[in-house]
Amino acid sequence: MNETHQGPEIYWVSGSPYSWRVLLALEAKRVPYRSRLLQASKGELKSPEYLALNPRGKVPTLKDGDFVLAESLAILQYLEHKHPQPALFGRNARATGRTWQLVSEYFSYLNGPVDRIVGPLYFGKAGEKADDIRAAAPKAHAELAQIESIVQKSKWLAGDELSAADIAIYPFVKSLLRAASKNEAKPLDLGFLPFDATYPRLDEWMKRVESLPGYERTVPPHWKQ
Amino acid sequence: MNETHQGPEIYWVSGSPYSWRVLLALEAKRVPYRSRLLQASKGELKSPEYLALNPRGKVPTLKDGDFVLAESLAILQYLEHKHPQPALFGRNARATGRTWQLVSEYFSYLNGPVDRIVGPLYFGKAGEKADDIRAAAPKAHAELAQIESIVQKSKWLAGDELSAADIAIYPFVKSLLRAASKNEAKPLDLGFLPFDATYPRLDEWMKRVESLPGYERTVPPHWKQ
Repeated sequence: MNETHQGPEIYWVSGSPYSWRVLLALEAKRVPYRSRLLQASKGELKSPEYLALNPRGKVPTLKDGDFVLAESLAILQYLEHKHPQPALFGRNARATGRTWQLVSEYFSYLNGPVDRIVGPLYFGKAGEKADDIRAAAPKAHAELAQIESIVQKSKWLAGDELSAADIAIYPFVKSLLRAASKNEAKPLDLGFLPFDATYPRLDEWMKRVESLPGYERTVPPHWKQ
Repeated sequence: MNETHQGPEIYWVSGSPYSWRVLLALEAKRVPYRSRLLQASKGELKSPEYLALNPRGKVPTLKDGDFVLAESLAILQYLEHKHPQPALFGRNARATGRTWQLVSEYFSYLNGPVDRIVGPLYFGKAGEKADDIRAAAPKAHAELAQIESIVQKSKWLAGDELSAADIAIYPFVKSLLRAASKNEAKPLDLGFLPFDATYPRLDEWMKRVESLPGYERTVPPHWKQ
């Protein structure tokens, strides 16, 4: 009768890169979970039931028995404590520090430009936001070039093993490339595609993520339609 | 001859809230460190020597023997691994998750509004940015009210003990209040002061931080002048 034997419940939205991080971590750690896929378009993020779990109406949320937790990086840290193997945040102080530096740098420097590019392209505002998208693109390129130089030297971002840095950053790069491939992006000439020519090592790194066991289960369902 | 016996070198700037986090964590863990105070106004963040340590020219940076690490939260996690006591990121999965949720929420929701208020007030742009400062103030208030409700129920943000959540958030609230106390802020009527009347429990929480052993050593030197 103990529902927690089936693993935590994960509330998420298709295409949310923050949600995707949590699904990738659960698959990497082979933790069974109960998927609670919400439809933002049906108002399910703002329902009284969901707001009781997550007062900001954001995803992802983890519910593990009576314990409820928001924020993707917090959920990754919770899973790391509860299911230490394989370690996603490093096995020693240096590896932990290096992994967190990469995660923090993504948040501090790449997240903003990616948002400014992806948001308008996903929501049909590419025309009116063209100048801002074009202004954000060089900032995103500068960060992608940094990441490219890292995966020239190592298989994964933080070294020889998959880490939370890969899991935290991959969904945002994938979303950026999906946005860049839209017809509305073509006249903007953002310079991300073809990705395997522009950032060949990063392209290989993405294919490594996409070869991980369970990866297919984490792909946003509406992307497959 | 092993210089690491004197503890890590910390490169920082007076008044940088990100730097302040690291100093507070070092004091909380009673880790000796070698202070490397940089003067941004003298270009010391962009010197070749410093850029070799931190290519972005940002603070803080930790240098521990041959290991160099950037990003305040990464440095806190490194220190946590290397000096586990007292634990700042929780002693179990739930406490770790809760601490990280608070740290992440600060970054996702409070950091932006605080930057929009503090930046112009510190750098003499309060006049030209008045509308944006006024627009940011209610967002900052909404988050401060959340934190007020947390410290109504517990002594520290993540429970009965000081955590990285307190250390990560305190320097930004303190910077906000310093900005709000400037003469240029008065005509903007932002509603933060007097803080002990507006957010009484948060005010008490700040005084608890300010009573921690070693706190005085972490106060930005130029604030004391």
